[in-house]
Amino acid sequence: MGNIAGPEIERLIQLLARLPGLGPRSARRAALHLIRKREELLGPLADAMRVARDRIVTCSVCGNIDTSDPCSLCADPRRDGTTLVVVETVGDLWALERAGVLNARYHVLGGALSPLDGVGPDELNIGALVGRVAEGGVKEVILAVNATVDGQTTAHYITELLSPYKVKCTRLAHGVPVGGELDYLDEGTLAAALKSRIDL
Amino acid sequence: MGNIAGPEIERLIQLLARLPGLGPRSARRAALHLIRKREELLGPLADAMRVARDRIVTCSVCGNIDTSDPCSLCADPRRDGTTLVVVETVGDLWALERAGVLNARYHVLGGALSPLDGVGPDELNIGALVGRVAEGGVKEVILAVNATVDGQTTAHYITELLSPYKVKCTRLAHGVPVGGELDYLDEGTLAAALKSRIDL
Ligand SMILES: [Zn+2]
Ligand SMILES: [Zn+2]
Repeated sequence: MGNIAGPEIERLIQLLARLPGLGPRSARRAALHLIRKREELLGPLADAMRVARDRIVTCSVCGNIDTSDPCSLCADPRRDGTTLVVVETVGDLWALERAGVLNARYHVLGGALSPLDGVGPDELNIGALVGRVAEGGVKEVILAVNATVDGQTTAHYITELLSPYKVKCTRLAHGVPVGGELDYLDEGTLAAALKSRIDL
Repeated sequence: MGNIAGPEIERLIQLLARLPGLGPRSARRAALHLIRKREELLGPLADAMRVARDRIVTCSVCGNIDTSDPCSLCADPRRDGTTLVVVETVGDLWALERAGVLNARYHVLGGALSPLDGVGPDELNIGALVGRVAEGGVKEVILAVNATVDGQTTAHYITELLSPYKVKCTRLAHGVPVGGELDYLDEGTLAAALKSRIDL
């Protein structure tokens, strides 16, 4: 392709292809779309990316990303500091914030323990979590990790680690997603939903 | 979202969501991926986009995009100037080049005639095509337009327009699925369709 339209376009396509959700073909389409919309989209996106690269930092308190450190969630005095919600990724934090039911503080692990992938406690933001709990003031740690083997392993590891402190560890309930159809759910979810059934 | 992670990230997500193939959810994932890979991906992509915005121009001869005008295809003396391949979009040109069976020159229309969408001959790069043919030297015009109603309308319109000149107009063989778009086809189908092109 380099000889068709120059190395600059080829480089743009190759970098776009590294975005999740874009393959080589859709990267080409995205590049053409961007070039067609040079002024309204390509330029602003280049600027937004440069700003993001230059200004976004990882919060030294919770592991969230923001343009300030501590992040705006950690700096917000209205947030309830007695509840700490532990998530695997910033994407999970965003998902919980979109749900809009929490006014707690967060702690982003940066992944889950995964012995098979060589991810141990040292690879995760766990030491800082223990530090926050040890400082006192936290009454409950909600382990909002994925309902995967790795996520549950991580939840149990952290629960164990926090057992010396006067803090309650909880996890999200398993069950039928709101709006979900039973026929599409796996047996594990159905079993969990049955087990945690609630009186009407 | 703006209050979670700052307006800079929100703006990045909104711009990414305008790329074809990325919805709001995948734009969030892409933004997080970019921020996680700040140095290896976000920075280089910002730079590649800036270079593309600043340096990519539309070729005044053929309508292709490149960092030079005339484009590298038009400037290549080894290209056979007696055959002109007319395509709707730069993406179609790329698709034909990937098929690797042509050594011709191109002409990019910038779309197809579409009375319903208000696209007439003046909206397309057709005047320049007639000019190139009128200059002489072109023996065959391959109308490699989409096998859609608009594409075929465009092919017939151009054939009519070029009828005063001593030039043979051909179209791609119907190996192209009816209703299909070139950019989505595999190289083998494109090569077969080129080989079986038919006089108009
Ligand atoms: Zn923070
Ligand atoms: Zn050109």
